[in-house]
Formats: sequence, C-alpha cells, structure tokens
Amino acid sequence: MLNIRSATEADNEAIWEIFHEVIAAGDTYAFDPQMSREDALAYWFSENMQTYVAEKDKKIVGTYILRPNQGGAGSHVANAAFMVVPNAHGQGIGRAMGEHCLSDACRLGFRAIQFNFVVSTNESAIRLWKQLGFEIVGTLPKAFRHPQKGYVDVYVMFRSLL
Amino acid sequence: MLNIRSATEADNEAIWEIFHEVIAAGDTYAFDPQMSREDALAYWFSENMQTYVAEKDKKIVGTYILRPNQGGAGSHVANAAFMVVPNAHGQGIGRAMGEHCLSDACRLGFRAIQFNFVVSTNESAIRLWKQLGFEIVGTLPKAFRHPQKGYVDVYVMFRSLL
Repeated sequence: MLNIRSATEADNEAIWEIFHEVIAAGDTYAFDPQMSREDALAYWFSENMQTYVAEKDKKIVGTYILRPNQGGAGSHVANAAFMVVPNAHGQGIGRAMGEHCLSDACRLGFRAIQFNFVVSTNESAIRLWKQLGFEIVGTLPKAFRHPQKGYVDVYVMFRSLL
Repeated sequence: MLNIRSATEADNEAIWEIFHEVIAAGDTYAFDPQMSREDALAYWFSENMQTYVAEKDKKIVGTYILRPNQGGAGSHVANAAFMVVPNAHGQGIGRAMGEHCLSDACRLGFRAIQFNFVVSTNESAIRLWKQLGFEIVGTLPKAFRHPQKGYVDVYVMFRSLL
C-alpha cells in the first residue's frame, strides 16, 4: 500500500537521501550533483511549493513537488518534479505520484501542467508521462550533458487539466 | 549612441522604473504586476545573473539579464530576459541588447541561449529574435493570460551559439 501525503520537516532526512542519490547519478536532473543538503531541502520546500512524499511500509520511497510554473499571468500552469528511490523503480511509485499530482493540481485550480526539462534519454519517465496524457510540446536541442551519452535533447511536456 | 554595460547599484532606480512599467502592463512577462521594488531588484540582481543596462544620452533606456537556464548538466544553455523603456520602443535598443547578449553569452562559454516564455502576441519581439537566429522550438498552449486577449500561446525559443 502506497500512501501519498504532504511532507513535513520529519521527512527531511528521507527526502534528502532520495534527492541526493538522484542528483548524484546526474542523468535526469539539471541540479549540481554536489548540491548541499541545506540547499536541496530549501529548494524542495520553497515558499511556493507543495511538497509530497510517498510512503510504503512506513518507508519514504518517493517525493514530488507541485508549484506554479510562472508567476502573474502564467500562474495557471503548474510545474512538478518527481523523485523515486532508485532501487524502488518499476513498482508503480512514479505513476501513483503522477496521478496524485494531476488530481491535486486540479484541486488547486491549475488549468495545465508543464514539465520544463525531461531528458530525452529518460525513456521510462517519458513513457509514463505520455500514458498520463502529457505531450511533448517542445524539444531543446542538446540541452543536457548526460554523464554517459554526452549532449542529448530535452523535452518540454504539457498536459491540459480542463 | 547606445552604451551597454554591467549594471551597478546606482542603476537601481532606473531599472525599477523600467521593470515596474513593463510588468504593470502585464502583456509580455509572467511576473506579478504588484511585485515590490525590493523583490524585483533582488530578482534582477540574483546571484547567478549578469545584469546589464543600455544607456543613451546618460539615461537608462533598457536592461537585460543573462544567466544559466538550468544548473548542473544543463548549465551550458543560457537564459536571458530583456526590458526596454516603453516609450523608447522602435529605436533598436532591444536589437542592440540582443546582439550584446549573444556576444557576451559566447564570451562566457555558453553553447546556446533559450527563452522559456515568449508570449505569442509579442510579435515585435518574436520577429527580432528570429532575425537574431532564434527558432521556436516549443509551443505552450494557452500558457499566458493576456490582459486584453485572454489565454494565448507561449513560445520557447532557442539559438545555438556554436
């Protein structure tokens, strides 16, 4: 049973472990792999973010954030980012968080969700987002330096919530 | 004669006047039109930004920022944003700042420049960026709420510097 809920300060250590492991791999996110615990948590719990965790058997196995992608006249479009414990991939945690995110974004009144930076080699994520109704609406040529594959394209993905 | 140079604290008042006038119009940027002077200047002079002003006859007539669009493995792509004093449009100030920006981005070692949020109704800007070699690489459906035209598309524009 997966329980997805708002994160609290008590989740800091578990979130940092996931965050650090994901950014240290360096193949999906454009964060500095050396980012400090303090900076990472400050970012993941920024003022304008909703921060969630996914819990399984009392262990945090994933986390995601949801926020307006822009301010002012762009604030009706949400942005989200997801991280799953690397050794828990393939268990449907990403999908469950994605579905939770769509539902919460609706509840919060967003009209659409946009992912700004989906690395094109992250095939399982792209497959999942397409299954959840997202489309590739932009391609950023060679915008990501993959640690093994060199410069690769990045996709902008978008889904209406109307 | 237009002189484009790095901004200093002495330019704060002039920058704020431009910034405020541009975001109050609300038809090109997704900033809260009520954004405070303090928040605006903190943003325009953020740690990772190069901030420039364009000076004509000792008056600041434009300002722009240049920064990495992402961190880590995405930091080779720059992002920039430009503002011109509203009553000084059509004098080539945007073009001069754009050309200065391309040249400075090269000098700083960026491999490309990306604009994340070009409102599709901002035709003069789109024309200028195309003339300077930018292409539309993505379209965000109805991602901007235009004060007169309602929800309109937004473009992602991109230019290689190699």
